[in-house]
Amino acid sequence: SMDGAPPPAGPAGLSAFVAVSQLLGLTLLATTGAWLGRYRGGVAWHSPLQFNAHPLCMVLGMVFLQGDALLVYRVFRNEAKRSTKALHALLHGLALLIALVGIIAVFESHRAKGIPDMYSLHSWCGMAAFVLYLLQWLLGCGFFLFPGASFSLRGRYKPQHIFFGIALFVLSITSCLLGITEMLLFKISDSYSHFVPEGVLANTLGVMLVAFGLVVGYVLTREEWKRPPLAEELALSMDFKTLTEGESPGG
Amino acid sequence: SMDGAPPPAGPAGLSAFVAVSQLLGLTLLATTGAWLGRYRGGVAWHSPLQFNAHPLCMVLGMVFLQGDALLVYRVFRNEAKRSTKALHALLHGLALLIALVGIIAVFESHRAKGIPDMYSLHSWCGMAAFVLYLLQWLLGCGFFLFPGASFSLRGRYKPQHIFFGIALFVLSITSCLLGITEMLLFKISDSYSHFVPEGVLANTLGVMLVAFGLVVGYVLTREEWKRPPLAEELALSMDFKTLTEGESPGG
Repeated sequence: SMDGAPPPAGPAGLSAFVAVSQLLGLTLLATTGAWLGRYRGGVAWHSPLQFNAHPLCMVLGMVFLQGDALLVYRVFRNEAKRSTKALHALLHGLALLIALVGIIAVFESHRAKGIPDMYSLHSWCGMAAFVLYLLQWLLGCGFFLFPGASFSLRGRYKPQHIFFGIALFVLSITSCLLGITEMLLFKISDSYSHFVPEGVLANTLGVMLVAFGLVVGYVLTREEWKRPPLAEELALSMDFKTLTEGESPGG
Repeated sequence: SMDGAPPPAGPAGLSAFVAVSQLLGLTLLATTGAWLGRYRGGVAWHSPLQFNAHPLCMVLGMVFLQGDALLVYRVFRNEAKRSTKALHALLHGLALLIALVGIIAVFESHRAKGIPDMYSLHSWCGMAAFVLYLLQWLLGCGFFLFPGASFSLRGRYKPQHIFFGIALFVLSITSCLLGITEMLLFKISDSYSHFVPEGVLANTLGVMLVAFGLVVGYVLTREEWKRPPLAEELALSMDFKTLTEGESPGG
């Protein structure tokens, strides 16, 4: 709110859940870094360690930033819708860029080592998640940011945008879990079953990815935590209703 | 409807989506059977093939039956709520039983081969999904089937039950994908990257599991496809509203 009045407080539970989600998100990144740093030699671009940029970029882009982009309508529930929309698009755009770097890392590392691309279920799910996420972003910009789409067209697309947004977030997390499993079976297949620390750490990372998805998904789907329409949006939508429905009593 | 009148038709799109979900579900089972039969020697209980009962039972119980149990309120949208509830609980119960058989299969097969249990991310996610699914079923029976819980307590638990129901269905599918990846890397790690038919078939099974989850999730979350309250339920809920809210004008 820009008029100096104290902003209306959001629902109490919402703040707690958002705080937990951010704590989990940062722990995710730290755990991924710890795994790669302590057990996989760290991350570097022009080196045999280039592959390690892949998990780091994907957890940062396709999970943490994508999740936070989904949360902006709950966190900034009293800001102007225009600015919140812009932030939503911006965070998703940043997530896509970082994910692209992560994808380049794995393709270049495969080429350097002579490993074929796109044969595993992880690569199929991950690539589907990335391509559909890019498509969803382009559609979202087309429908909601640029002035061309009509009010009613936006209204009809919005539920689809929300469903596929959450579905792609879930598919992204699933792809990370598949990637963790692949990497452990490639690197420590002999010792994984003996509960070595690297295996337990990477499993824990997987569990935390699921927990992050659960908390974000819970926040997004609470009816009572949805962003309330602002006064000017209500007025606009009522103008629209009057315009299209006239005096029909059934409205 | 039991009075002989033709039942009101459901929304047109709903029937098509439910039909696609059932086609996908049956194809899932056939593909799992084809993979195990054609490439993994088939399924038998007291034999080295006991392990193969695991993927078959988990896809049947934790995916197909769990998914269909979630759909009953959309498919039988004009039946009495009591019978629909009973069918919902029954299908979930059957899913749990079949999943239990699948879990016993993997533990017994591990014991026979001297393989440790519960070390992998697949086992952590899968066991979490099963235990929480059992808990959710017990809570659901306690709140909704037995007469003890009050109307308002049921109302407050219901959104939680729905969220965790969908979340556990998603986690179950994720666990299947992790299991497919593990099995391929255990059995065909040398040829998987050469796009051998078994790898492509199992990857396709993974993609179909994702598609089944998407279609079921889409049907469940369409506002306009939700089960309409029946006349007697509306009357009851209005009695309840009158009782608790009196004549308050803000309702």
